Amino acid sequence: MDYTSILNQVFDESKAFANEGKVADYIPELSGINPDKFGILLQTKNDQHFELGDSLEQFSIQSISKVFTLSMAFSLLGENIWKRVGVEPSGSSFNSIVQLEYENGIPRNPFINAGALVIADILLSHIENPKVELLNFVRELAQDNSIVYDARVAQSEKATGFHNAALVHMLKAHGNINNRCEDVLDFYYHQCSIRMNCKQLAYAFSPFASLKEPCSFASVHLSKSQVKRINAILLSCGFYDESGEFAFKVGLPGKSGVGGGIIAFLPKEYTIAVWSPRLNKKGNSERGMKALELFTTLSGQSVF
Amino acid sequence: MDYTSILNQVFDESKAFANEGKVADYIPELSGINPDKFGILLQTKNDQHFELGDSLEQFSIQSISKVFTLSMAFSLLGENIWKRVGVEPSGSSFNSIVQLEYENGIPRNPFINAGALVIADILLSHIENPKVELLNFVRELAQDNSIVYDARVAQSEKATGFHNAALVHMLKAHGNINNRCEDVLDFYYHQCSIRMNCKQLAYAFSPFASLKEPCSFASVHLSKSQVKRINAILLSCGFYDESGEFAFKVGLPGKSGVGGGIIAFLPKEYTIAVWSPRLNKKGNSERGMKALELFTTLSGQSVF
Amino acid sequence: MDYTSILNQVFDESKAFANEGKVADYIPELSGINPDKFGILLQTKNDQHFELGDSLEQFSIQSISKVFTLSMAFSLLGENIWKRVGVEPSGSSFNSIVQLEYENGIPRNPFINAGALVIADILLSHIENPKVELLNFVRELAQDNSIVYDARVAQSEKATGFHNAALVHMLKAHGNINNRCEDVLDFYYHQCSIRMNCKQLAYAFSPFASLKEPCSFASVHLSKSQVKRINAILLSCGFYDESGEFAFKVGLPGKSGVGGGIIAFLPKEYTIAVWSPRLNKKGNSERGMKALELFTTLSGQSVF
Amino acid sequence: MDYTSILNQVFDESKAFANEGKVADYIPELSGINPDKFGILLQTKNDQHFELGDSLEQFSIQSISKVFTLSMAFSLLGENIWKRVGVEPSGSSFNSIVQLEYENGIPRNPFINAGALVIADILLSHIENPKVELLNFVRELAQDNSIVYDARVAQSEKATGFHNAALVHMLKAHGNINNRCEDVLDFYYHQCSIRMNCKQLAYAFSPFASLKEPCSFASVHLSKSQVKRINAILLSCGFYDESGEFAFKVGLPGKSGVGGGIIAFLPKEYTIAVWSPRLNKKGNSERGMKALELFTTLSGQSVF
Repeated sequence: MDYTSILNQVFDESKAFANEGKVADYIPELSGINPDKFGILLQTKNDQHFELGDSLEQFSIQSISKVFTLSMAFSLLGENIWKRVGVEPSGSSFNSIVQLEYENGIPRNPFINAGALVIADILLSHIENPKVELLNFVRELAQDNSIVYDARVAQSEKATGFHNAALVHMLKAHGNINNRCEDVLDFYYHQCSIRMNCKQLAYAFSPFASLKEPCSFASVHLSKSQVKRINAILLSCGFYDESGEFAFKVGLPGKSGVGGGIIAFLPKEYTIAVWSPRLNKKGNSERGMKALELFTTLSGQSVF
Repeated sequence: MDYTSILNQVFDESKAFANEGKVADYIPELSGINPDKFGILLQTKNDQHFELGDSLEQFSIQSISKVFTLSMAFSLLGENIWKRVGVEPSGSSFNSIVQLEYENGIPRNPFINAGALVIADILLSHIENPKVELLNFVRELAQDNSIVYDARVAQSEKATGFHNAALVHMLKAHGNINNRCEDVLDFYYHQCSIRMNCKQLAYAFSPFASLKEPCSFASVHLSKSQVKRINAILLSCGFYDESGEFAFKVGLPGKSGVGGGIIAFLPKEYTIAVWSPRLNKKGNSERGMKALELFTTLSGQSVF
Repeated sequence: MDYTSILNQVFDESKAFANEGKVADYIPELSGINPDKFGILLQTKNDQHFELGDSLEQFSIQSISKVFTLSMAFSLLGENIWKRVGVEPSGSSFNSIVQLEYENGIPRNPFINAGALVIADILLSHIENPKVELLNFVRELAQDNSIVYDARVAQSEKATGFHNAALVHMLKAHGNINNRCEDVLDFYYHQCSIRMNCKQLAYAFSPFASLKEPCSFASVHLSKSQVKRINAILLSCGFYDESGEFAFKVGLPGKSGVGGGIIAFLPKEYTIAVWSPRLNKKGNSERGMKALELFTTLSGQSVF
Repeated sequence: MDYTSILNQVFDESKAFANEGKVADYIPELSGINPDKFGILLQTKNDQHFELGDSLEQFSIQSISKVFTLSMAFSLLGENIWKRVGVEPSGSSFNSIVQLEYENGIPRNPFINAGALVIADILLSHIENPKVELLNFVRELAQDNSIVYDARVAQSEKATGFHNAALVHMLKAHGNINNRCEDVLDFYYHQCSIRMNCKQLAYAFSPFASLKEPCSFASVHLSKSQVKRINAILLSCGFYDESGEFAFKVGLPGKSGVGGGIIAFLPKEYTIAVWSPRLNKKGNSERGMKALELFTTLSGQSVF
């Protein structure tokens, strides 16, 4: 497979979508980003890298962090975790509160905001210093100790995140939050504020793509079966109410964030990270989605 | 009209429902109430009183307070108030968050919790010391300076009111709350904690029933037209998703509270307050509703 | 009360809204109507008439017919009717199917389409020739034997009424329709196609306004209490999801139809019919609503 | 891989769930089935068969037929098909009408009933004799000319299928049905009534699993890319609101029917059909789901 040529073609053809969508503006600290940034990086099972554009520039990973916190909670609680959060696509936008009211405070899956808040609550209950542990875990995954929280982004989200505050209070009203709402939100905003670049992301997801042995880092130990199950949730629920579209057009497990980043991977073959800050109406990177669609079309590979 | 005889009959016949329903238990301080309490008091346009049972024992008026705060806000903002809250029945339970998400944070009416929180926010924005002003207003209406907030109830609700916290944060996420969420909730829980008895309530609602001149107390001035419009909202929306049922069976404007109190009135004729702590599934006093249905059936009077 | 002067003022001032809204276009036979028509007619308890404009021109009464069919079914079944339809405002548009799915096929009230279809089904089950009986009943109420169905309108609605067909099949799926769906729709479209003018409507509603003795026509016998209860449903639910607004601004029981007609009344005082074909977004006559708001504002009378 | 041993273990261990769930009773003709039937059949890329139990007994394939009709419509219209139906999981039960009302009559995906009705409408518009063509297509796929419609089942569903009738009328009200509702339902009930056994199903899905060249039968021609996209929709949406759970526990594209059948496959490796009539609350075969979960757990293979 001539990945260099394919990535070049992806880079060129996806330019047609470079001006579509708009940068997330509901988080002040994110809205200042240069909207024209674009980076892409592929890491193969043979540890080869192919990269283009701003692949080494860090950005706010936002919801991509939900995969890391889910992994920690899944490692801690095993199958018991599913008593507090489901594995079904929500069919609704990332921050919908409607289903919580109808479904007794059990979020549909761990990748919508409500689900991630429950996961955060689990970590707060079981880990003494979850912020430190999370950062250690991500650094080990990416093998890069320079990864840090962006305190300004976390603070910025806390100051304006009334929707998430509504979600966490609704969850607590239904008995699905055990810690103080403020503490859950504080942890959640910190996890979202982690800054990584495409290379760090591609590297960090290698164990999820079974390019390496299943995760066994710090206190996080996932079996092969657990890794596969996380893959399944990524494929079903990784892109909010655009998950079906992503499975349809790209055909890979993956996860997006409103910072414009997307990670996706073909199990046992490669991980691929892409970054482009302009978002479509569903909150996913416009050019990033197109780039990945082109990539799997050109490479002819997917899980199907 | 032989009100003494009618009230006696109401008292006797409504006993059949004395053990139905259950006391509100989601507010710890309310759940300790003696569930068998029952009081009723009628005040006529001629300033006569007819009363039975525990009509002089104070209870937590809870949502009945929403009429007082609406009056203050309506007096302050006039018709502009309807830019921030509607006058339509919600068709949903008192604390539903679903419509807020679908309808951009504009609550259906001022008597569901979300609407009352917006009204509380208005008072916080326009009155220097709204807690003091509200109490003054209620005392003037009831002509009784002994009326006070119940700090323990307010505190109790604050400690467990995660659903209301979810509502106020959702409202703020939609830009319909201008003050700090904590401050809005603090005021809201205080207004709900006001303690009054049936006599004080019946007296306080006389201006709303046009038994006296339209409200003109302290800083609250309502025109005849405004009083009629509050009457209309009471008839349409005073009993959450049981409002149609109350209009159908009782046929009077009125308002209930989860403390078990109900106030209702026939304009230009009388006000009637009833108290019985056991609630039906909709959150309205079980025996109180039956008593009022019997009362208008026996007296043959309603707005229709 | 100088009704002549008031009606003149209503006529003049409501002209400002004469070009707002648009004629119902989903029923081809209705869309051809002259949108500038406007008629108003007041009938008092003293049997006086005050009228202006096109008050003697017939139009399609559409949903106003739901009051007549409800009366027949209420007379036939008594309180048992409420096992199959509720008395609560729906909080949704006139043809919403959502609540049926959530609430097991029991329509919120008899004035939304789903509720009226259940009422139609009741009449089909209990009356041998319901079309003939309904017309007889309406003719007796209006004391005018010239009132007829408009077969072309009925046919036109049947040919395009897929939404109502969806509703009736959903009701049947939930076991709340006993006759053939086609037969229920046929009757329903006929009832909606009845043509009346403002004078006939004002006259026909006199018994509902208690200007005359309670209905006792043909096979329809309603007690005073039943008439009052119909009044209550009219006030709560007569204008779909604009019912609260109508109660708030007009303060009378009433019912609208997409033909542009509105009937309203002040019990024991008067009935008033108005017609203007342009509808607002809620499906109620734009100028008609304004005219009635002006009328009760100028006359200073309402049920409150 | 010792498939014989694995299937034996699946057969034995899944017995524990043999009495859970209940046979679909809303279709009279289906409710008479022996609930204890169980068959399973695996077909590999090497054209080997492994089978146990009632694998050669035919049953009503019901919703599994939606894959065949989607294939025909996708072949006919190409990407234009997605203007009329989406590819997102619905997050709701198989026959929900709610989303149609909120989303303008565009069903979320072709595997919920509403979506399948739109697909049926497409076939009626583009094929002269769609019932004959569909049967020819299925016979060619399964290489078995004995496959037929079960007229009694089709008739039985038509006589009681008021929910589907509601769906198709709602779709037509939104302009997303071009043929007569009756004709769409007639075709739909026929497609659901097709009788096949596990062997025929496993064989028929070989082209979808890329065990053979992409479909090119009769008038149905699908590209490799189109086959992969159908796989993606199967994984996202094949099991109604249990699709995420199936992806999570089984990890294969698949489709269930209320007759108790399930087809699933690992692309380029095998197809597997299982049949057990007792259904869980989501409408999927209780023992069938467990059997497939055991199968992929024991074989250690999935798309992830």
